[in-house]
Amino acid sequence: MTVISPSPTLALPGTRMASEISEQPLVLARVLEEGLEAFRGMAAIIRKAKPRFVLLAARGTSDHAALYAKYLIEISLGLPVGLASPSTLTAYGATPALDGVLWLAVSQSGGSPDLVESTAAARRCGALTVALTNSPGSNLAQAAEHHLDILAGSETAVAATKSYTAQLLALWLLIDAWRGGTGTQAAGLQAWAASVLDDDAVLDLAGRYRFAERIITTGRGYSYPTAREGALKLMETSYLPAQAFSGADLLHGPFAMIDAQHPVIAVVPEGIGGDAMRPVLERLSGRGAHVCIVGDPAAAAPGGLVIPLPGGVPEELSPILQILPLQRLALALSVARGNDPDAPRGLLKVTETW
Amino acid sequence: MTVISPSPTLALPGTRMASEISEQPLVLARVLEEGLEAFRGMAAIIRKAKPRFVLLAARGTSDHAALYAKYLIEISLGLPVGLASPSTLTAYGATPALDGVLWLAVSQSGGSPDLVESTAAARRCGALTVALTNSPGSNLAQAAEHHLDILAGSETAVAATKSYTAQLLALWLLIDAWRGGTGTQAAGLQAWAASVLDDDAVLDLAGRYRFAERIITTGRGYSYPTAREGALKLMETSYLPAQAFSGADLLHGPFAMIDAQHPVIAVVPEGIGGDAMRPVLERLSGRGAHVCIVGDPAAAAPGGLVIPLPGGVPEELSPILQILPLQRLALALSVARGNDPDAPRGLLKVTETW
Repeated sequence: MTVISPSPTLALPGTRMASEISEQPLVLARVLEEGLEAFRGMAAIIRKAKPRFVLLAARGTSDHAALYAKYLIEISLGLPVGLASPSTLTAYGATPALDGVLWLAVSQSGGSPDLVESTAAARRCGALTVALTNSPGSNLAQAAEHHLDILAGSETAVAATKSYTAQLLALWLLIDAWRGGTGTQAAGLQAWAASVLDDDAVLDLAGRYRFAERIITTGRGYSYPTAREGALKLMETSYLPAQAFSGADLLHGPFAMIDAQHPVIAVVPEGIGGDAMRPVLERLSGRGAHVCIVGDPAAAAPGGLVIPLPGGVPEELSPILQILPLQRLALALSVARGNDPDAPRGLLKVTETW
Repeated sequence: MTVISPSPTLALPGTRMASEISEQPLVLARVLEEGLEAFRGMAAIIRKAKPRFVLLAARGTSDHAALYAKYLIEISLGLPVGLASPSTLTAYGATPALDGVLWLAVSQSGGSPDLVESTAAARRCGALTVALTNSPGSNLAQAAEHHLDILAGSETAVAATKSYTAQLLALWLLIDAWRGGTGTQAAGLQAWAASVLDDDAVLDLAGRYRFAERIITTGRGYSYPTAREGALKLMETSYLPAQAFSGADLLHGPFAMIDAQHPVIAVVPEGIGGDAMRPVLERLSGRGAHVCIVGDPAAAAPGGLVIPLPGGVPEELSPILQILPLQRLALALSVARGNDPDAPRGLLKVTETW
């Protein structure tokens, strides 16, 4: 009798992505346990440097982690923050005056030439440069003066999942230490994340969206990066045109696209960002939109769809949980539509751009 | 005999938008002739203040003009720039340290409460505040320490057109004066714009895209704001999900959406931003994408579609011309698809967000 063991190449579609999604509670615990000291050390260096301004440089999923850091720094440290346009330093060769500026580059692979080159240029222009990657041996880690490991472990699915939540937590820990915090608010994350991943309500959503032509995602403040990252997951795994707007920008031109035929996912946490979404939800309701709330069940219309998230989570930590059901939605929808989310057409794991 | 004069309410769909699109050569001439002195005066005040950093605040179409200004300031003045997230100052009540920061708010109407409130907050936090609007009597003009009129004249179509190109030129003139320029490079704009609006090649494109399910637009550097604004025009007038990506970001996750069934509009000027798009165009070609080039005919594949723009235009001024055919495309496509671009569903001219 011959026992045939499954070959990795015969794995079911999305096996790798599913596995990496499910690792996240453990990854979050590892970042907290093994990373905290390095983040505190880096925070001490940054506090000593007293930056007057922060520039964040990133692409793709990492750009959404950078956007999260923008809100966190502006709100809790009162420092102005900009998202760098790498092409100004690379293609256009600008040499800005960056003394007193913290340049924080965020990348899973640390391999994209434009980030490496723009970080090296920022360092030459006088910035304090810090790279936050999942790859300590990468070119980006070398190009920056300082490097922080996000400790997500090897990520092989093309669609980034665990590296995103690890980036969010690493950034939160760094910024929390910078403002003098002790990181204790994050202690519950492993258990919260496990409970969110245990809830299969999102699989029903995949069934409902299977035939959707397009999806709009929206959120405000800390939850806007979640809307952006959720849309990117849907695009890269399901090839579904998913468009993310801040709640405020949605009410400008894009609102004309809202109708009853196309679903909207609204990320609505407990807290200020959730409250700021209420007028947007009213306007969506007025147009007969099909809305699913991710977050606070109290924000849903009577009988409306909701993917509930645990209550009592500080709003600034909620993005680490909000993205989990959206990752699972992207995976389930991709498989339901006959695609393999582990091998999206036209993509490689490391995207090289100049 | 009774002569029946056409009532304004019986006007053909899109009459107002068409009229405002066609005014643009004259508006550009007016901004140059009547605005230059005020822009120079403001530039002198800014130079004296020696800002160490610039924050731009805007929503919707104006946000794309702000993004253009970000590239122009970073590249030609070597100052770091951030796009403000108004909700951090309004909803979250952040009070950042903004001494030595130039806060530049851009808005057609000057009426959106979140821009007014965040500009007032930035002024209290020590920023040098300048509002650039089409409405000198607006709340935003009052809230900022300084106001600049973009002189576009009354704009009544919901989809902003002439106010966008007037914003771009006003920002260019302000920044050019700030860096010590005389504005003479812009002298040809009226004639260039008239020649672009005389070319009806874009109407053929409207016929081709009439049945498209979705469109992707892309560009890099100075042309990325054009891709964003072109996509917004298509969304708000044709309800078509149009997604804009910088050429670099497109190659990350969104590239999985590229196939032969959905069109791509690539904004490719002569110059550095156009050169930086070449690898992107090659990748698109490799996926069999249907690409239309707006700009440099030399960038098109043999036999490929192109909406040519005049040669010899400085790259940093080219966005003022690039958007013109895309405005006309949005108008023609909206009418072809049975909509009225002058009255997009769900939208008002002044969007109030908090």
